[in-house]
Amino acid sequence: MNRHPRITLLAGGVGGAKLAVGLAAICEPGQLSIIGNVADDQEFHGLWVSPDIDTLTYTLAGRIDSAKGWGLADESNRVLDSLKRLGCDSWMYLGDQDLATHILRTQLRGQGIRPSVIAQRIAESLGVQSNIILPTDDRLQTRIRTPEGWLSFQEYFVREQCRPEILDIQLDGVERATATPEALAAIREADLLVIAPSNPIVSIGPILAVPGLGQAFALANAVKVAVSPLIGGATVKGPADRMLSASGYRCNNLGIADCYSDLIDGLIIDQRDQPDASALEERGLHVMTTNTLMLNDADKTRLARELLQFAQGQLTEERLAC
Amino acid sequence: MNRHPRITLLAGGVGGAKLAVGLAAICEPGQLSIIGNVADDQEFHGLWVSPDIDTLTYTLAGRIDSAKGWGLADESNRVLDSLKRLGCDSWMYLGDQDLATHILRTQLRGQGIRPSVIAQRIAESLGVQSNIILPTDDRLQTRIRTPEGWLSFQEYFVREQCRPEILDIQLDGVERATATPEALAAIREADLLVIAPSNPIVSIGPILAVPGLGQAFALANAVKVAVSPLIGGATVKGPADRMLSASGYRCNNLGIADCYSDLIDGLIIDQRDQPDASALEERGLHVMTTNTLMLNDADKTRLARELLQFAQGQLTEERLAC
Repeated sequence: MNRHPRITLLAGGVGGAKLAVGLAAICEPGQLSIIGNVADDQEFHGLWVSPDIDTLTYTLAGRIDSAKGWGLADESNRVLDSLKRLGCDSWMYLGDQDLATHILRTQLRGQGIRPSVIAQRIAESLGVQSNIILPTDDRLQTRIRTPEGWLSFQEYFVREQCRPEILDIQLDGVERATATPEALAAIREADLLVIAPSNPIVSIGPILAVPGLGQAFALANAVKVAVSPLIGGATVKGPADRMLSASGYRCNNLGIADCYSDLIDGLIIDQRDQPDASALEERGLHVMTTNTLMLNDADKTRLARELLQFAQGQLTEERLAC
Repeated sequence: MNRHPRITLLAGGVGGAKLAVGLAAICEPGQLSIIGNVADDQEFHGLWVSPDIDTLTYTLAGRIDSAKGWGLADESNRVLDSLKRLGCDSWMYLGDQDLATHILRTQLRGQGIRPSVIAQRIAESLGVQSNIILPTDDRLQTRIRTPEGWLSFQEYFVREQCRPEILDIQLDGVERATATPEALAAIREADLLVIAPSNPIVSIGPILAVPGLGQAFALANAVKVAVSPLIGGATVKGPADRMLSASGYRCNNLGIADCYSDLIDGLIIDQRDQPDASALEERGLHVMTTNTLMLNDADKTRLARELLQFAQGQLTEERLAC
């Protein structure tokens, strides 16, 4: 591995963005690429909203509302209040500053500029030094079937606040989606591929499901490490537990290993899940046990450093020994 | 004329909206229709902005920033500041509450809804009881030639603050524009047609220039009155004086009469322009002289009442006597 290994992170929103910040803090500018999730994108009021990509961008720009984990700090909702007054739905919170991002994105999409290029341009405008990469420029849509019918991810997550029972999860548009050259290159050229502690079903899944990306990941020569999103057998936040179950996976680190079977060399689990380590190792995985809860920037940087040491040390030595 | 005559006002932005408020104050709901100007419309940040229509709507809704005469009261510019941070032009002031209007308008236009229907829906949402009517659903664009080249109206008016010399004024798209059925009906079915004290060249001109509308106005059976936008031979606000000159008209009430020749029965002029009255009367116009400066709501209502009396009394009697 190089002095400055090329690191590519696959990440969803809040949890993924935390690890992205930790990695960015110990990387040189441009050394880190982050492939985000676009399957939660949805149009609101005719504007293209890309929640996971914006969470990554705002977090890396140091402008995230850190109490919520999403949205911009010091946000207001004058536009949304006015839209409501004009008779529009307002269940999707869209702050005033955040709306500027959606307005610009929608304008540039209308001009035929690739969504990938737009995402990178917005990130650069806000001072982000890592590469923000979209898995595809095509429209992917996570759809969730509930007893009341199919919902978009945002309808399930924001409007219904994850209350409906999940009967099925689909990824619409994936067969016709084309991987971006940036995503393919970031996976193929990485020295270290990292899967963030994000929802394996609706955040990481839609990235790896884009035709060509899962295969590129499997074939890549990089060291491949995932950080489990579970702590004490439960999710820190969000509906990953119910989604793992609905998708037929166990809601523990063995279930996470099943999600990423044949894709990863090592799995980082929380110290509270130490008992899972031996079963994971029996399946041929390298396991690092540490505190994976990222409550502040020091936690994020520490976890990123430990991850890098895990990858550079144990895994690489092992590989060299083979 | 009926007990509740149907009144149709042709109006531009700020000045026209003041008379609209005066007329609305003495009209029953639905009695007043206002045909506004769309030739100043322009897209900003991919959003369709319709400044004159919005000024009419916000003024009639009682939500206008009365100090400025345009924009919404208690406005903020969080979105615009964020767009600027993202590298976008920000010379066109677009407030947060105002942007909600542009976002909704753009969304509905994208759904194929006619701009006229959108304008009326927005007005109704804000509680406006008069009919806001667009002259055409097609794209009209006032273009102004200056020594530096052609500018859009907003570029000339807002960005360049009316500083460049005006060499020519054109109305792009007018040959291909189709009048809306609502505008044709509002002109044909009116008992009283009023031309507001707006810019004759770039506010009223683009309404009357839409194929069919000028002819309908000329042929209408209504009493037809204009209120001069000049006071003391000068404009209250805006570049109408320079535009009259650039278009070959004198910058006085005789020039205004020339703009509307064969279209009006009567002209209301300011008391400071009393000396113009006899020359106007020699041309066959009925003239009312009053205080046409509308500084407050009482002025607006008084002028509207005087206008109605002028139309109902002198003009109608004269017509009956013929």
